[in-house]
Amino acid sequence: MAGNAFGTLFRFTTFGESHGPAIGCVIDGVPPRIPLAETHIQPWLDKRKPGQSRFTTQRREADVVKILSGVFEGQTTGTPIALLIENTDQRSKDYSDIADSFRPGHADYTYQVKYGIRDFRGGGRASARETAARVAAGAVARRVLDSLLPGGATIRGAMVQMGPHTVDRARWDWEELANNPFWCPDAAAARLWQSYLDGVRKAGSSIGGVVEVVAENLPAGLGEPIYDKLDADIAKALMSINAVKGVEIGEGFASASLSGEQNADEMRMSASKVTFLSNHAGGILGGISSGQPIVARIALKPTSSILTAMKSVDRLGREVEVSTKGRHDPCVAIRAVPVAEAMLAVTLADHLLRHRALSH
Amino acid sequence: MAGNAFGTLFRFTTFGESHGPAIGCVIDGVPPRIPLAETHIQPWLDKRKPGQSRFTTQRREADVVKILSGVFEGQTTGTPIALLIENTDQRSKDYSDIADSFRPGHADYTYQVKYGIRDFRGGGRASARETAARVAAGAVARRVLDSLLPGGATIRGAMVQMGPHTVDRARWDWEELANNPFWCPDAAAARLWQSYLDGVRKAGSSIGGVVEVVAENLPAGLGEPIYDKLDADIAKALMSINAVKGVEIGEGFASASLSGEQNADEMRMSASKVTFLSNHAGGILGGISSGQPIVARIALKPTSSILTAMKSVDRLGREVEVSTKGRHDPCVAIRAVPVAEAMLAVTLADHLLRHRALSH
Amino acid sequence: MAGNAFGTLFRFTTFGESHGPAIGCVIDGVPPRIPLAETHIQPWLDKRKPGQSRFTTQRREADVVKILSGVFEGQTTGTPIALLIENTDQRSKDYSDIADSFRPGHADYTYQVKYGIRDFRGGGRASARETAARVAAGAVARRVLDSLLPGGATIRGAMVQMGPHTVDRARWDWEELANNPFWCPDAAAARLWQSYLDGVRKAGSSIGGVVEVVAENLPAGLGEPIYDKLDADIAKALMSINAVKGVEIGEGFASASLSGEQNADEMRMSASKVTFLSNHAGGILGGISSGQPIVARIALKPTSSILTAMKSVDRLGREVEVSTKGRHDPCVAIRAVPVAEAMLAVTLADHLLRHRALSH
Amino acid sequence: MAGNAFGTLFRFTTFGESHGPAIGCVIDGVPPRIPLAETHIQPWLDKRKPGQSRFTTQRREADVVKILSGVFEGQTTGTPIALLIENTDQRSKDYSDIADSFRPGHADYTYQVKYGIRDFRGGGRASARETAARVAAGAVARRVLDSLLPGGATIRGAMVQMGPHTVDRARWDWEELANNPFWCPDAAAARLWQSYLDGVRKAGSSIGGVVEVVAENLPAGLGEPIYDKLDADIAKALMSINAVKGVEIGEGFASASLSGEQNADEMRMSASKVTFLSNHAGGILGGISSGQPIVARIALKPTSSILTAMKSVDRLGREVEVSTKGRHDPCVAIRAVPVAEAMLAVTLADHLLRHRALSH
Repeated sequence: MAGNAFGTLFRFTTFGESHGPAIGCVIDGVPPRIPLAETHIQPWLDKRKPGQSRFTTQRREADVVKILSGVFEGQTTGTPIALLIENTDQRSKDYSDIADSFRPGHADYTYQVKYGIRDFRGGGRASARETAARVAAGAVARRVLDSLLPGGATIRGAMVQMGPHTVDRARWDWEELANNPFWCPDAAAARLWQSYLDGVRKAGSSIGGVVEVVAENLPAGLGEPIYDKLDADIAKALMSINAVKGVEIGEGFASASLSGEQNADEMRMSASKVTFLSNHAGGILGGISSGQPIVARIALKPTSSILTAMKSVDRLGREVEVSTKGRHDPCVAIRAVPVAEAMLAVTLADHLLRHRALSH
Repeated sequence: MAGNAFGTLFRFTTFGESHGPAIGCVIDGVPPRIPLAETHIQPWLDKRKPGQSRFTTQRREADVVKILSGVFEGQTTGTPIALLIENTDQRSKDYSDIADSFRPGHADYTYQVKYGIRDFRGGGRASARETAARVAAGAVARRVLDSLLPGGATIRGAMVQMGPHTVDRARWDWEELANNPFWCPDAAAARLWQSYLDGVRKAGSSIGGVVEVVAENLPAGLGEPIYDKLDADIAKALMSINAVKGVEIGEGFASASLSGEQNADEMRMSASKVTFLSNHAGGILGGISSGQPIVARIALKPTSSILTAMKSVDRLGREVEVSTKGRHDPCVAIRAVPVAEAMLAVTLADHLLRHRALSH
Repeated sequence: MAGNAFGTLFRFTTFGESHGPAIGCVIDGVPPRIPLAETHIQPWLDKRKPGQSRFTTQRREADVVKILSGVFEGQTTGTPIALLIENTDQRSKDYSDIADSFRPGHADYTYQVKYGIRDFRGGGRASARETAARVAAGAVARRVLDSLLPGGATIRGAMVQMGPHTVDRARWDWEELANNPFWCPDAAAARLWQSYLDGVRKAGSSIGGVVEVVAENLPAGLGEPIYDKLDADIAKALMSINAVKGVEIGEGFASASLSGEQNADEMRMSASKVTFLSNHAGGILGGISSGQPIVARIALKPTSSILTAMKSVDRLGREVEVSTKGRHDPCVAIRAVPVAEAMLAVTLADHLLRHRALSH
Repeated sequence: MAGNAFGTLFRFTTFGESHGPAIGCVIDGVPPRIPLAETHIQPWLDKRKPGQSRFTTQRREADVVKILSGVFEGQTTGTPIALLIENTDQRSKDYSDIADSFRPGHADYTYQVKYGIRDFRGGGRASARETAARVAAGAVARRVLDSLLPGGATIRGAMVQMGPHTVDRARWDWEELANNPFWCPDAAAARLWQSYLDGVRKAGSSIGGVVEVVAENLPAGLGEPIYDKLDADIAKALMSINAVKGVEIGEGFASASLSGEQNADEMRMSASKVTFLSNHAGGILGGISSGQPIVARIALKPTSSILTAMKSVDRLGREVEVSTKGRHDPCVAIRAVPVAEAMLAVTLADHLLRHRALSH
């Protein structure tokens, strides 16, 4: 109830602050006899790791994951899986300025009001550092999906908009993601973004973005109406990611301008199976997966850690000005891609287990 | 876990199908000694009730709510509050056509796949009829907020876009909502929408829309990081409403195009209190309320119940065409306004109780 | 979280006070396509119904159950099942004495302290009347077990001790339960109890008792270590019944005096299946069912509603004396038998669904 | 839902196997600004530590606890508290015999059936080693109680029966617990038990026992009827402890033989406060604390790890004989005392937070 756990049957609880000794999570609800080792988790953490280009924060973390429990002779046992990631790069910098001042747009002020105390070092619990634990849990969720679903599931994300610049979907190529530091599926857009973001970065400014995540090969029937609808739980999962301000499924906000004729996904039979002629719905009808690809997008705000001094106040109620020097992320949306994938994976794993329980 | 309950401390479970004998809910977690009677709930149900203009479905329901438990001598007792609403207008129409065919864009297909059985009469459990129970729970949530918060809370919604037509925020006037059947705060837009929607309706078509809900006078400090963030729970609450395909907080998707300088909400002191110079964040920072108005928007798709015949399949795997005759909603977003208000109210009541438990 | 729900996957929430218009429950988590009608539930309610002999309270309730939702054409649909039981015998007696005085041994005092308000009519929410809703939920749980388990499950209870008088297990005959008003499996003991309890009743006194419940034909593997052990959840389920002061599994408290040699359940193979040579464990090892019969016992205190005046206080802090005139139960353990069966059934149905979710 | 978490608002999840690298827990739901350091936790772990007399298992564990998160500058921050205890004494013994055979009375068989895999080294997850994590969580719960309750709470336990030998309550002296290795409050009984248990130990046998735990200075009003009654949750908490087969509150099973007159706790006023003239109820009425001391007792079975060879089977369905050589506990009830205290503490801390949320 204190908010640090996610899921119902596949349920994980994360812990740790940016500058504490370690972060990690405990996953309770992994079925037994699923092959699992650190090598299944580490690559996803490596993908999320900051400092891999000049476009993400230069904090250097080894992010080495260690499985503490729940695995025996290479397989899950059905008992809780504890994952530990030690913090190694907590620079002993001077936090005296932000210890007392509230950075505009950050959680500094609200944590202080809520708790009357906060670990201000590096953002404490509100730091994006916590998302490493999400990615680790997401890697285990992928193992669950791949183990329980024939053919496995494919869950991947891409950045589709940086500031005002969107990708051209006609040029979408998943293979392109490996060729640029933005998880951008459009090579031309990626080139544009590179020069654009260099400008933002050099100006000490920041910019928002949009990320799209897609899950393929999931069965129809996942999702529990009326409140734990699959799209409702995906919305919660994705909105919980740092800096996210919007979530949409399928056509999303565009559907507000569509007519019923335009928005309908007609159905036909093909090789004795139901097929859809379009996917405006993003793979979810009435809160339940239809078997089509599940498509969600999230909008991320620009970080408020910028060079320009902004008006703020401090803990003692004095008016101050705050600016952020040193390492920072010009576009935090970039690093959100692996995190959004992970959150989609855990939501799907949870709903797959839930569906098993109550089907007949 | 089967998805028909919402909330953790203020928790309600709804039940009932469109054409069963009754719908209702049980609310567990209402603090004691809050004045409560049917008269506190009925006006909100009346507001939601369909058939009040030619722009919503012509189903006629009395929607009379009855309190079965949890209230003694006009006050809550801390025990569960059961609310019952009898169904009165279940027309004995012939459902043989939709009993077997799946209406495109509806939950027909996914319910059938998930459960292997469905109450097809009037949409069964997936019908918007269920939202009456949400509105009733929302009315009780308002009583909780008004009782526990000095000065009470104001939670209200408006429709801000119909199809391609948006309101002009410069003309926003909450008083205008009473003057049109759309909950539209802009008199000029309402006039335009009226003729526009008449055209849609007469064509047997449908159109989407956008609804905005605002909560004022909530304290700072509500919301449980990291996963049960206030915005994450609002996203889930709103995405669970029928036909919703997107949720955004504050600037939402627009923030993707903003720079850090543009998006920052600077802070100053005013009369010894922290004030914000803008509200791009929509009242939530790091998942915790900041004390500013909480602002959320939802996108609703057009209903797929349209006159035009659409390609579909039936339970036996035969290809069919489906069209909807008779009463229907040309713009389901209209009826979503009171429901969205209710879902915001229950989310806030729940988080207010959660905050009380864990504050020090 | 307010305590009026039980179970995780098979989860029901009860509502209603002794003298309100109705009591009932909503069950969320019943798998679809299980045949269900009122006729599956009513017999269990009839069995629980008070006033069937001179040894239970003379309140007369029709206890007619009505299914409001979740069933379509005779089968469950996977949606919530709401059950309603109207209260018919709320005698308009004068409650002015107990409205203000706290009956010793009742929940009067603690409800008043906890909530600052209580519905004192007939005990309000704390009345044993609430157990009718448990029995209704238990009947549905039996349907779930019978539907999902090959051969169905047998869950039954018996009273094994009344005051100081225990049954002779050598004479145990389940058929005898139908022949006496005590659910006593030992005809000789039943005769003794009858004259004994007549004495208690005529003296306006009361006496405690012990009830045993047994579940047969459950598979091995039910129960989630470490905290949601099957025996832990059974203990909670049974301890939640009115007047229960102790719960034991298998040998229970007697095992404290046994040696490891005496208490061991040795295992052999029989017809290629594992069999146990004894059942000291009561069918549960390490919190997980072993496939043997699950055996639990509960101790019930004597009701404190007695003719003798007892020292107490009232709401205004004045010292008073309280005695109970009129209808009452000389041995509340009798009526607990069907309730204990029901609570065992719901616990097992819940764990069966949980096991399905997480097995591989 | 997989059973490795306890509590609702004060909620902890434990992880770890007997012979894995570490065990520990994550506690989510600790209010902020409670002074907390390892020095508040370590003494309770030291008290639980095995190998402190010849009457408990000779496994040697340092049991050094490390706080990984949730504490900043000596105070809790409201974020999750992760506690880590490394395993140091995992003797590299040969487990080949128990790897395949099921020890009668242990969880070996049921884990194998449930999961199809088990970490058999030292009992794996089912080992009493897990209780160290409970004790650590209990220590934090004590900090919560002491911080939120004026005057703090006193929670302590004692062993009151070993095999057939009970303590004499007339000689009860809490100070005596420090003078014997049994947490026995009766010096004379302790002397008897010492020679008695030496006999059991030398015979390679084992014996059961009864432990009593008492919580004092708790307010009236804790406990959520109807299902999350305080006694119901205590019953679950205590029954979840390894080897426990029975739980009782107040008079417990003895109340079955009492009359209403004997069992009543009469009430008087004393210094303007309600006082009770006796405490047969064990401090709980209608599932809610009355303000009297809360008294619970648990029965523990003798461990089935004994020298005598017992009939069993192995994984391949072969009949075998199993006996336990080497270090073992002749009376596991001894080590359960600090664990039972801890489980009572966490249950009370949870209910204290729950009561704060929903009171008015």
